[in-house]
Amino acid sequence: MTLHISQKEVFQAMRQIKHPEIKSRNLVELGMIPTVIVQGDRINITLALPSLDVPIKQELIDMVKQAVAGLAEGLQVEIDLTEMGEAQKVVFHNAFRAEMQVMPKSGVRIRHVLAVMSGKGGVGKSSITALLASELRRRGFKVGVLDADITGPSIPKMFGTHQQPEGGSEGIQPIASRNGIKLMSINFLLPDENQPVVWRGPLISRAIQQFWSEIAWGNLDVLFVDLPPGTSDASLTVMQSLPLDGIILVTSPQDLAGMVVRKAANMAAGLSIKLIGIVENMSYLLCPECGAKINLFGASHAGYTAERFGTSVLGYLPLDPLISTLCDEGNIEIYQSEIFKGITNLVIGQAQIEEREEK
Amino acid sequence: MTLHISQKEVFQAMRQIKHPEIKSRNLVELGMIPTVIVQGDRINITLALPSLDVPIKQELIDMVKQAVAGLAEGLQVEIDLTEMGEAQKVVFHNAFRAEMQVMPKSGVRIRHVLAVMSGKGGVGKSSITALLASELRRRGFKVGVLDADITGPSIPKMFGTHQQPEGGSEGIQPIASRNGIKLMSINFLLPDENQPVVWRGPLISRAIQQFWSEIAWGNLDVLFVDLPPGTSDASLTVMQSLPLDGIILVTSPQDLAGMVVRKAANMAAGLSIKLIGIVENMSYLLCPECGAKINLFGASHAGYTAERFGTSVLGYLPLDPLISTLCDEGNIEIYQSEIFKGITNLVIGQAQIEEREEK
Repeated sequence: MTLHISQKEVFQAMRQIKHPEIKSRNLVELGMIPTVIVQGDRINITLALPSLDVPIKQELIDMVKQAVAGLAEGLQVEIDLTEMGEAQKVVFHNAFRAEMQVMPKSGVRIRHVLAVMSGKGGVGKSSITALLASELRRRGFKVGVLDADITGPSIPKMFGTHQQPEGGSEGIQPIASRNGIKLMSINFLLPDENQPVVWRGPLISRAIQQFWSEIAWGNLDVLFVDLPPGTSDASLTVMQSLPLDGIILVTSPQDLAGMVVRKAANMAAGLSIKLIGIVENMSYLLCPECGAKINLFGASHAGYTAERFGTSVLGYLPLDPLISTLCDEGNIEIYQSEIFKGITNLVIGQAQIEEREEK
Repeated sequence: MTLHISQKEVFQAMRQIKHPEIKSRNLVELGMIPTVIVQGDRINITLALPSLDVPIKQELIDMVKQAVAGLAEGLQVEIDLTEMGEAQKVVFHNAFRAEMQVMPKSGVRIRHVLAVMSGKGGVGKSSITALLASELRRRGFKVGVLDADITGPSIPKMFGTHQQPEGGSEGIQPIASRNGIKLMSINFLLPDENQPVVWRGPLISRAIQQFWSEIAWGNLDVLFVDLPPGTSDASLTVMQSLPLDGIILVTSPQDLAGMVVRKAANMAAGLSIKLIGIVENMSYLLCPECGAKINLFGASHAGYTAERFGTSVLGYLPLDPLISTLCDEGNIEIYQSEIFKGITNLVIGQAQIEEREEK
């Protein structure tokens, strides 16, 4: 018995399958069904995934099988899983982000959104976010910082700001630092900074989305997003629902930190997000007594990581005890160093942040 | 019109309400309804919560209102929210944990479960977990380490272990370190340690529960749980579903770190979990050239935090570059120091880890 199912009919059935997470698109449109081969009652379908370990893999396989089963009885379906090529991944992830993206308030105009990430905690993401924001502000740019670390927020303390944000007709107003950097952090909303935010993932994600969509950020040249450690809800939400221009990775010389940072880089690469470059923090310490250069965390691994991901090291920062003191005092904005100016120049170049005529 | 609803009837209705998260108990049993006052058709109910910002607050209020509405028409219900007293919180959280707890494999016997936490990343939780485990092992105790940091696991690299765990009739076997510490970490399950684990909260929680319930830990004196930064899914799952004896907090001198650590301490206190004490890491550095004592991260705030939470500082550890080198080499087990022996003594005392006759 020949069942006379054509390749075209199979493709047509695949077009009926909406992606469970990208509900406005079907599997064919998303490039997930590159080939269909029909031989009598045997059908071979290639299912292309952005990564072979996507959590909804089985769900997709079941949907494909069910759609084919609906065409005729007795069909044998074989599904070959494959990973999308790089170009196809970009198309897929752009469709995904278009679906997930939350819109900012009307009237908000943000030219560049840069996330600062490391995967690893305690390597200085927040310090580097604050220093980059401060240096760009000093050069006349309009800058904001969205503190996406909901359970361990550092930004308010570093800038010495404690006000409660106020709502207005245009949305909730961010808090301005002394030099006019616009800040938003969960700690502004807590009666006591020592109060924990014991939330599971969905609430964390929603808070981050609201910091993007309900804050009257106004007109910004650059918004920095300070990510928490890890590659779970907060990072995923920022990468999926904010229009990121790219990610600045922060690492320390330790290979243990490097390993976790490479996890973060792999996550960003897997979601087709550009790496602006890597900042190695706490590279060394100059002894304040004798001037000796002390390698606190062993030899550097940043070059290896940068090469592996086709990006560059933006700079190597020493551990400067002054930074920690200024953070505790809420005075991070006044810190300047030649090394950091160089890093800022490279970020401006890599992220193509244009000089503004009217500052 | 008098409706003749008695206080007893209202309490009876409250007994019909199962707690949404502690399904085997009703609100009265859990001490959540301390008072009911009936005056004609007006009913005042006090609803006692373990914390005034529990996420299911509204759900509980609605359940109480609905239950009263079921008694008679036209009743006016007023609900006063209050926070439970400390003793009641302990009862409540014990019931909660009894409900949430996942059981270990049969044949597993673990005398003490101690979590190492900081809230903040990069202050040395994993190093201190590894050093405590190594020191206790050196003294003859049977020790395990459950790496609850799913997105940034450090334990395998520190111990230089890379095997794939194997299943057996008794469950999945943990990986033994050179000195016989039993280890379990997500990185043992990944083909490449640089591969990210891009999971949202529920999967993170499930992995941690499985590391507890499906691993053939055998007979252990102490299992250390190395927590990730933050007070979200991983920490919550460990605190709610593992029978913790207590928490060792790790901090650094920086007040910025201290603030986040105090969030963690507040979370533990809010869930009625004992604080064993605080270890301050990276307290200072001795210059290898001139011997000068350098305060890398400002003046210590650990004493302030300890006092605030009625616990003690277990010790102040210097930043020793050798630790970072040993971690990268996978040789953390060989590190010893007098300061760390003192910290271990205090942990043994505080957690009441008994000396074993047969080691």
